[in-house]
Amino acid sequence: MSQLKQLNDRIISRVNANLSEFNFDTENFVFNSLEHEKMLKFYAFYGITSQHPLYFHFRNSNIAGSYFLGKCYVGRSAVYKSDIRGDELKRKGEEIQGAKNIPLVEDEMITIKDSLLYKTLVHSNSHNPESPEEFGIRNTISAHYANIHGSTLEGCFLGPFATVDLMNLHSCIVGEFSYVQAGELFHRKIDPGTVWIKNQNFEFKYKFNKDILKNYIGVNTQYQPRGIIYDFVKDREQDFERLFDVMVLDPIDAPSSSAVNRYAVIRGKSRIGKNVLISQKAFLDSAVMGDGSNAQENTYIINSTLSGNCITAHGAKIVNTDVGKDCFIGFNSFLNGKAGSQIEIGEGCIVMPHTIIDSKGPIKFPDEHLVWGYIGSADDIKNQTIALDDLAAIRESLTIGKMTFTGKGSVFIEAFRNRLRQILLANGALFKNEDNRGHAQDDQNISYNLIQPYRTGQRKGLYPSIRIKP
Amino acid sequence: MSQLKQLNDRIISRVNANLSEFNFDTENFVFNSLEHEKMLKFYAFYGITSQHPLYFHFRNSNIAGSYFLGKCYVGRSAVYKSDIRGDELKRKGEEIQGAKNIPLVEDEMITIKDSLLYKTLVHSNSHNPESPEEFGIRNTISAHYANIHGSTLEGCFLGPFATVDLMNLHSCIVGEFSYVQAGELFHRKIDPGTVWIKNQNFEFKYKFNKDILKNYIGVNTQYQPRGIIYDFVKDREQDFERLFDVMVLDPIDAPSSSAVNRYAVIRGKSRIGKNVLISQKAFLDSAVMGDGSNAQENTYIINSTLSGNCITAHGAKIVNTDVGKDCFIGFNSFLNGKAGSQIEIGEGCIVMPHTIIDSKGPIKFPDEHLVWGYIGSADDIKNQTIALDDLAAIRESLTIGKMTFTGKGSVFIEAFRNRLRQILLANGALFKNEDNRGHAQDDQNISYNLIQPYRTGQRKGLYPSIRIKP
Repeated sequence: MSQLKQLNDRIISRVNANLSEFNFDTENFVFNSLEHEKMLKFYAFYGITSQHPLYFHFRNSNIAGSYFLGKCYVGRSAVYKSDIRGDELKRKGEEIQGAKNIPLVEDEMITIKDSLLYKTLVHSNSHNPESPEEFGIRNTISAHYANIHGSTLEGCFLGPFATVDLMNLHSCIVGEFSYVQAGELFHRKIDPGTVWIKNQNFEFKYKFNKDILKNYIGVNTQYQPRGIIYDFVKDREQDFERLFDVMVLDPIDAPSSSAVNRYAVIRGKSRIGKNVLISQKAFLDSAVMGDGSNAQENTYIINSTLSGNCITAHGAKIVNTDVGKDCFIGFNSFLNGKAGSQIEIGEGCIVMPHTIIDSKGPIKFPDEHLVWGYIGSADDIKNQTIALDDLAAIRESLTIGKMTFTGKGSVFIEAFRNRLRQILLANGALFKNEDNRGHAQDDQNISYNLIQPYRTGQRKGLYPSIRIKP
Repeated sequence: MSQLKQLNDRIISRVNANLSEFNFDTENFVFNSLEHEKMLKFYAFYGITSQHPLYFHFRNSNIAGSYFLGKCYVGRSAVYKSDIRGDELKRKGEEIQGAKNIPLVEDEMITIKDSLLYKTLVHSNSHNPESPEEFGIRNTISAHYANIHGSTLEGCFLGPFATVDLMNLHSCIVGEFSYVQAGELFHRKIDPGTVWIKNQNFEFKYKFNKDILKNYIGVNTQYQPRGIIYDFVKDREQDFERLFDVMVLDPIDAPSSSAVNRYAVIRGKSRIGKNVLISQKAFLDSAVMGDGSNAQENTYIINSTLSGNCITAHGAKIVNTDVGKDCFIGFNSFLNGKAGSQIEIGEGCIVMPHTIIDSKGPIKFPDEHLVWGYIGSADDIKNQTIALDDLAAIRESLTIGKMTFTGKGSVFIEAFRNRLRQILLANGALFKNEDNRGHAQDDQNISYNLIQPYRTGQRKGLYPSIRIKP
């Protein structure tokens, strides 16, 4: 197993070099995450469709249990049980958002180098105008269920259930369960449980109470996750195994305009509406997916109803909850309703990324509200929500509980709504009469290349170099 | 489906150009063999071990249901449910047999171009001194269960269950169930049911009676196979399906010095001895595999016992038969004993390739005999066998029944015994104290890359270009 060991050591030393100012040693994390014998048992998957530019190349890497779609290059890296979904990569000739006059000279490609991604999601296109053709992740370690969403990274460590969104980070540590969307960051350490959105027009900031957070997502001294949310996910890992054990599964009943990935779990009395996207490693149990709704990677929708055009962002968990039309449930949110006492989310609500709703009694959120942070009972609603119209009226700043907002509320809401519209469009929720195709239509009929590592010899655990192109 | 159709048309036109002198049109064969919708359902497999030089590259091809091992290139070809087993390819620096002073400048590679191989086996290294680094198959169509064994081909059509062995063929048609090992052939048409071995020292020739042959292996006007042997194989095709439906199978009980391919069927009270090789698509049902014995691709061993060091060459079928030690059962032979009336093969027998033994009553072959042709009852033994010692005494020629032998019998037998020794060595039958490793040891712990075609669009049914290297 010596070459795999060398690979681990190289990754550790590269990331440590970037993070030396923080005295941060990633060695413990890596050695406690990767069980080499397990890595021999898993397959990697490369999805092929006629709708996506196709290029897959990796070498000197281990990519166990991982799923790739679109153009990807992986070199000298370990990518373990991660989803690398390149179906929103920019194409040749397109322009990067916010950087007109930089048309791409070739299709954008996800490039992962000298990195370890562990149960991580990589999705969306990058927003780095300095490298429009390359969605680069270098010298970076990313822990369990982190989301790398349209963000280029160099020399970073992302803690468990962290999300970095539409940004560029250099030599940063992002604490567990933190959500950051802040343009560009250099040499920063973000505390655990921070929810932070900042641009030239506004800033939203919330920080979870430390003691509450560690009940849900904490880490031990090796930066391994623990707590209620981690247990929730871990308890259901086994349910996915069957999907990987068999080559052909009975198709799930769904309209022809919807895509249900064959690596999603669909159980109970689930119902899939039109223009619905169910991504790989989504988990549905007695879930009603209204037309145009989606369940992205690592989402869980259990005993819940999503009315039309609801977005379940990567990693969100919706349990015993009824979600009204046109709602957004942000990344890694945990809506933990109880049997017989559902959570009710009104129409047009925005549940901010990394929100936890976990009340013993019934709890109801009115239409058109912004919801954030930790809501442990109905009493918390007043400090953790605001009507969108009220927020739109804010001109300078607002503090409610532990949340501070600075800037024009109307700009914030308009930006959010624009983004939600783009998400629905990208996901194929608005598909009609052959117009507005999106993932729900394009991510059907995926065929898979299943890739295994060397099982013996010096390269045991490493994968041979593979290049797939049209 | 247009690019797949174009591929078919190109193959047809190329092969037809080579075979125009025979007025042979391959179009019917191709169109009646390839069901395009079925081709979408199958996977191709590339086996990876730390023991074999690794290079797999193909483009503009369909390779449905096929299995590859070792260095292979496939271009503009359709390879359907075929086994391309490159574990005897020559390595860089080795010399080609019979051509000293031509050391290979790089590892030998199987190269398949503008060809259609249909349920075909390709194995062993080529013996073409003009292209030592390339085991080439060009402009060639090969039908059901043909064996391309160490033979380079250009512009050929091989009928169902035909075998070409250690030779080079140019613009030839080889009829169904013919076995040819005759060095180099140009522009020849070999009649169905011919068993022909010729070199500078001797010649062995036998031809099956036409009417008998067509009961066992005939072809219809589209060159599709029919008859008892084809039905035998077809009846068992379904038994392989389960192997392809699941990713992980319970391991078969076998000594650590033996290899049982996970794409072999093993049922009933089968027992695997030491140093045994069971190749992919072998079928064992209540088979006792004595130490050092093997069951190569497309072999069937049912209610039968193979004593030590028995070779079951590609495609041989052994039913209700007891085989003594050190026997060779040649390619595609059909030993069809009946329940309660076993066929008995004595020790050290050589059953020639393409032999059919199908007696209603019990039948017994003494030790150290050569056996060939069609044996329908015990009465046929006298015209279809000869003691090896008697054959060794032949100086010029011998005719028994429809078999003629010319040359020195002793040279023929010595050549055969040398080859059998080489086969045992290559298969790992002689492995002891870590010496004499062979396929039984090296073909363990194979990991597989499973490859699927485009399911939609212009390229539907074609595979993307894939290159795998260390």
